[in-house]
Amino acid sequence: MSRLAVGVDVGGTKVLAVLVDRSGALLAEARRATPLDGIRDAPGVAVVDEVALALADLAAAAGTDLTGLPLGVGVPGMVSHAGVLTFGPNLHSATGADMTKLLGIRLRGWQATVANDADAAAFAEHRLGAAQGEDEFAMVTLGTGIGGGIVTGGRILRGRRGYAAEIGHMIVDPSGPRCPCGRRGCWERYASGAGVARLGREAAAAGRLPALVALRGDAEFVRGEDVTHAAAAGDKEALAVLDEVGWWLALGLANLAAVLDPGRFVLGGGLIEASTLLLPPARRHLTGLLEAGELREPIEVVAADLGAHAGAIGAALLSQER
Amino acid sequence: MSRLAVGVDVGGTKVLAVLVDRSGALLAEARRATPLDGIRDAPGVAVVDEVALALADLAAAAGTDLTGLPLGVGVPGMVSHAGVLTFGPNLHSATGADMTKLLGIRLRGWQATVANDADAAAFAEHRLGAAQGEDEFAMVTLGTGIGGGIVTGGRILRGRRGYAAEIGHMIVDPSGPRCPCGRRGCWERYASGAGVARLGREAAAAGRLPALVALRGDAEFVRGEDVTHAAAAGDKEALAVLDEVGWWLALGLANLAAVLDPGRFVLGGGLIEASTLLLPPARRHLTGLLEAGELREPIEVVAADLGAHAGAIGAALLSQER
Repeated sequence: MSRLAVGVDVGGTKVLAVLVDRSGALLAEARRATPLDGIRDAPGVAVVDEVALALADLAAAAGTDLTGLPLGVGVPGMVSHAGVLTFGPNLHSATGADMTKLLGIRLRGWQATVANDADAAAFAEHRLGAAQGEDEFAMVTLGTGIGGGIVTGGRILRGRRGYAAEIGHMIVDPSGPRCPCGRRGCWERYASGAGVARLGREAAAAGRLPALVALRGDAEFVRGEDVTHAAAAGDKEALAVLDEVGWWLALGLANLAAVLDPGRFVLGGGLIEASTLLLPPARRHLTGLLEAGELREPIEVVAADLGAHAGAIGAALLSQER
Repeated sequence: MSRLAVGVDVGGTKVLAVLVDRSGALLAEARRATPLDGIRDAPGVAVVDEVALALADLAAAAGTDLTGLPLGVGVPGMVSHAGVLTFGPNLHSATGADMTKLLGIRLRGWQATVANDADAAAFAEHRLGAAQGEDEFAMVTLGTGIGGGIVTGGRILRGRRGYAAEIGHMIVDPSGPRCPCGRRGCWERYASGAGVARLGREAAAAGRLPALVALRGDAEFVRGEDVTHAAAAGDKEALAVLDEVGWWLALGLANLAAVLDPGRFVLGGGLIEASTLLLPPARRHLTGLLEAGELREPIEVVAADLGAHAGAIGAALLSQER
């Protein structure tokens, strides 16, 4: 195991690169914007190019050449065991790309370990964060969509092809709104940042959030962050929207519990950072939505420890495992 | 490992006891009716008494004393690692019972391994049946409700408390019909024997199954088996009901795939024995309901091999593992 490692988290909006030591401590970081999600080049080429530039930035920030260090790269979507992004609804330009191969071509002297971004975050939270000591847990990252990482028996559950823990695409209401994945009523339409925005616009259109409508000029332009800010300031109707989002969040957690029976749920991602107001309603509704919720031991629902760095740190740690 | 083992499957309607050799081959069997599901005695006492009587019948059938052989007992519901039936929506009279302890008291000279019935069936199908050679699969037993057993990395996924794979209680429509578990819209309201009956009655009430209404006198009295029999005889409207059930079945399988990414689904239970007509629609609808269903490798959907004996045989095999 190398003393140092590099991790990269490719998100829908930014590419974050970190240098960590073997304890996972952050030594340097660099970030760049994720290239616009059009299909300019062959799938994955633009993204991999940006990863290479982020690594150059990281080397400059660290003041040393990093070439050849263990390198892990987390990407959002269905990542095969071999590192092909079979489907990336939040990274369309790389759908179908053999990320392992492209990174090998673009980054001479490196050999990348490619993983799902939320799997990487789960690995980091297990090793260093909010899931330490719990070998049965599910990581739920709430951003624009919902990502997942599942640990059972202390190991990441990846499934037959590597596509496990695509939990944002559990269907929770078959007649629900369309999802970018092409189907209807996926969990991430309700309990993610997109869900806060959608349910917030519905509340605004129903006349329940007049201050936000005044702020944006029309209910259609109300944003998710408007709702979380108003809720943080004590607006009762905004808090009611977050309560509804919390109910949907709890519904999905209950479905995960029916399949996995974890000892703990670790909630991360930008939405949790934006509003810890989601956790109390999710906890409150979970008991009623769990099978035998009043008879069984409760399942902990906690916030992630490592915040926005979890995915990148986890990718670095995963690269040291190979 | 003992050469012989005894397995008991406690179902909602019958108690099946089997004697198997180490290869799982069936040497003798006995069955009794599950005691009526009222709370006459302390929880579990009536059920455990019937298990004891079934074991006496089994010894008589085998023509030899079986006392002290490895003994596995499968029960439906949320079974803790210690063998407590924390919640048994299809075996209410035993909810809360410490089955391991009660069996130890009633059965002198035996020490029982208590497991969830569908976990036991999954173990048997993995060892001897339709999941041989596949270390990532989900067993789905379709009876009155839906039971589940999940194998990942070649091992049964039991979760933190033992309650994993309660897959029939994933909520697939929060505004759906009430479930005996106390919540609304659980998967087993749609894709089980109860689902065939309910959707069949709806079709009958809408005038689509006149022959079955004539048979039973009223749409309210149409049974699930009426629908499967009519479908087997080629009745188009009955086939349409099974197609709808198959769609709901595929929806739950897609949700399981989002969480677990299994290589195979093994479908068992009385409903599959009653009608293999469910498998083709489930397979057909699954591709459209899976995330990236057209981009990813297909997931096999196959019928179980061991039929009604899977749970009892699996319980016997599990008892040899301890």
